Amino acid sequence: MAVEAKTVADSCAQAKEASRVLATLDSAPKDAALRAVAHELEARVDEIVEANAGDLEDGRASGLTSALLDRLTLDEERIRAMAAGVRTIVELPDPIGEELESRTLYNGLQLRKVRVPLGVVAIVYEARPNVTVDAAALAIKSGNAVVLRGSSSAQRSNAVLARIVADTVEAAGLPAGTVTLIAGGDRSDLAELARQDRYVDLIIPRGGGGLKAALQDGATVPVIFAAAGNCHVYVDSAADVAMAQRIAYNAKVQRPGVCNAAETLLVHSDIAADVLPGLMEKLREAGVELRMDARVRAVAGGDGEGLVDATEEDWDTEYLDLTMAMRVVDSLEEAIDHINHHGTGHSEAIVTADEAAAEAFTSGVDAACVYVNASTRFTDGGEFGMGAEMGNSTQKLHARGPIALRELTTSKYVVHGTGQVRE
Amino acid sequence: MAVEAKTVADSCAQAKEASRVLATLDSAPKDAALRAVAHELEARVDEIVEANAGDLEDGRASGLTSALLDRLTLDEERIRAMAAGVRTIVELPDPIGEELESRTLYNGLQLRKVRVPLGVVAIVYEARPNVTVDAAALAIKSGNAVVLRGSSSAQRSNAVLARIVADTVEAAGLPAGTVTLIAGGDRSDLAELARQDRYVDLIIPRGGGGLKAALQDGATVPVIFAAAGNCHVYVDSAADVAMAQRIAYNAKVQRPGVCNAAETLLVHSDIAADVLPGLMEKLREAGVELRMDARVRAVAGGDGEGLVDATEEDWDTEYLDLTMAMRVVDSLEEAIDHINHHGTGHSEAIVTADEAAAEAFTSGVDAACVYVNASTRFTDGGEFGMGAEMGNSTQKLHARGPIALRELTTSKYVVHGTGQVRE
Repeated sequence: MAVEAKTVADSCAQAKEASRVLATLDSAPKDAALRAVAHELEARVDEIVEANAGDLEDGRASGLTSALLDRLTLDEERIRAMAAGVRTIVELPDPIGEELESRTLYNGLQLRKVRVPLGVVAIVYEARPNVTVDAAALAIKSGNAVVLRGSSSAQRSNAVLARIVADTVEAAGLPAGTVTLIAGGDRSDLAELARQDRYVDLIIPRGGGGLKAALQDGATVPVIFAAAGNCHVYVDSAADVAMAQRIAYNAKVQRPGVCNAAETLLVHSDIAADVLPGLMEKLREAGVELRMDARVRAVAGGDGEGLVDATEEDWDTEYLDLTMAMRVVDSLEEAIDHINHHGTGHSEAIVTADEAAAEAFTSGVDAACVYVNASTRFTDGGEFGMGAEMGNSTQKLHARGPIALRELTTSKYVVHGTGQVRE
Repeated sequence: MAVEAKTVADSCAQAKEASRVLATLDSAPKDAALRAVAHELEARVDEIVEANAGDLEDGRASGLTSALLDRLTLDEERIRAMAAGVRTIVELPDPIGEELESRTLYNGLQLRKVRVPLGVVAIVYEARPNVTVDAAALAIKSGNAVVLRGSSSAQRSNAVLARIVADTVEAAGLPAGTVTLIAGGDRSDLAELARQDRYVDLIIPRGGGGLKAALQDGATVPVIFAAAGNCHVYVDSAADVAMAQRIAYNAKVQRPGVCNAAETLLVHSDIAADVLPGLMEKLREAGVELRMDARVRAVAGGDGEGLVDATEEDWDTEYLDLTMAMRVVDSLEEAIDHINHHGTGHSEAIVTADEAAAEAFTSGVDAACVYVNASTRFTDGGEFGMGAEMGNSTQKLHARGPIALRELTTSKYVVHGTGQVRE
């Protein structure tokens, strides 16, 4: 990989050339190259750990938190897990060539709509160096060239991982330029990347708001942002009480810092007195601060530590923390309305034994994923059986929900004739 | 339709409210409403023709060309054709509710990915008032609310057509706000429309570059632009000569002003002497100016009216006129390379009897539609059996090729459980 000194535009141009070849490959050479990558990662554990040690040293010197240092750390176990992740992706069905539609037109033309790679996919990510390998493997499996742009805090780790992947797939016969790493410096290179619409077909940023802002201004390349999740659990009047309590608790507490965790609980007034007291006690035991409207307070009593009045702002807040807003509603329609006005369209759940209520909820709620009698926490490419994921989209165009292999593809109409011309 | 005095934002907000209801409807009420629209258009021919006469009078006074006046004109025949178009859309399969994927997850969760409406689709268009009806019908059939923004030159015609459609569908039981017309004035309303991402899910502009520029700056709503088409016909060494001549002639001459007409002919050197002289003579008889490279000139002789040297610029030009660039290439690979570097990814054709060449071309060329032994002119929603279309996309995300009913939809994961929580 002798591309590190190139400009962003040169790197992207070479990726585009590579993508022309990748688009014509069937599964075998892509899978063989990825298997070689998995093998090479395991064979070069020491080299990777050594490079990572340099990043960790800098990180400690610059005062990174222990959480960030942990995310940055690579050891033999984590490197083997990366290799295993690559092998998992190899085993997934190849989306390329899938026939999406097929018909014979009135004039005898044979029309097929087939799945093809997007071309060049750029991934912008922070901290975790394992994304270097995950993202490259997903892109290659789906026939794309990939431009990787990691953060400077992981630059040595990313460089050695990208070099291993790039050199290995090239040695296995994939074109030069299949994998390119842009060294992350300040954010000026992001603005340049976002304008390479001649060469780059999609940018997926995995990171915080600063990244989003840096990519949004003046971007000519389409960007799919990983989503915010202001998710709800609605307990319907026909809910099983124990199930409702279990699901609400899990959706809030099991991992509060992720986008598919629930932030607001809505409870039907008919069942509030059965559900709330026990649930709120369990939530408080788990350290959850509860922000209640007056009707929740009336049902459950309102004094004690961690019991706070909700304000309008709470309905729109993604806490990503051990905090939960709670509201009593008088109908299913009121719950749907609350969710459509305050939600971010990520993951929404109803708990109910009433099939008509479930149907009204799943059809009326406008979100990427709607659940009946299950926790919102299942929204995830791995849980959904899609293999790894590149993030979760709440936008409606192109990809909605987990971004995995299919979401890195587009389609092409292939039309076979026998000399047909238009009259 | 009492919405014409509202602000753009108010109109879009009402459309979003309507879309919440539309998303829950099955086919019957949408189809019944559209049938009533078709009936009402036929019943109110005189009223429509009278409104149109006012637009035509203004158009003549302001010096519109006869071609533009013709596009603006509505008479009984054209109004009946509009009604027939609505009935055609009614008969198309409803895309909403289609199951795109379905599986049972390891934990018993039942996962379904279903097709749902986008929500609110805005259509921006010029001149032709029939788009008012076509666009509304496609949007309603696919469960969307629609915001229409026509041009001021057709304002009376658009107003009466939009009023008929809006009033009729509301009388048939669809929600108020299903169809909204924003009166076209200067382009400040376009900038406002393009920032309504809270309410509008997609903008489709049907018109020229000025429209594109007005929508592109500062847009927060996704926009799918109707595409430019720099399309090619490549005559392979294994082509049937008569078929190649027929297809190239048709792709250039049958309707040169549209995006799927061919602009450049590429011919393999082995067959150039068989194909070019006769084809060039026919093209010249049809009034086509030929812009040749030196090798075409060497094969076909270079003197005479309408024979011009091609420059580099010709390979990148969409003439939309009776002009064709011509080039001799030495291989299929050279042809694919030329197309991938100069084409706009719209419609590309190979003429060949060699199946391996056809396969290499369809897999190697990066375009929305690739043809084997057929004219590029077939790229069209109607020709492809998709019913009417809103335009043609050459972008890779969300919609590639004709934009019809399915392209006005997104998907939603609906997950049914029995109390599952994440461990």
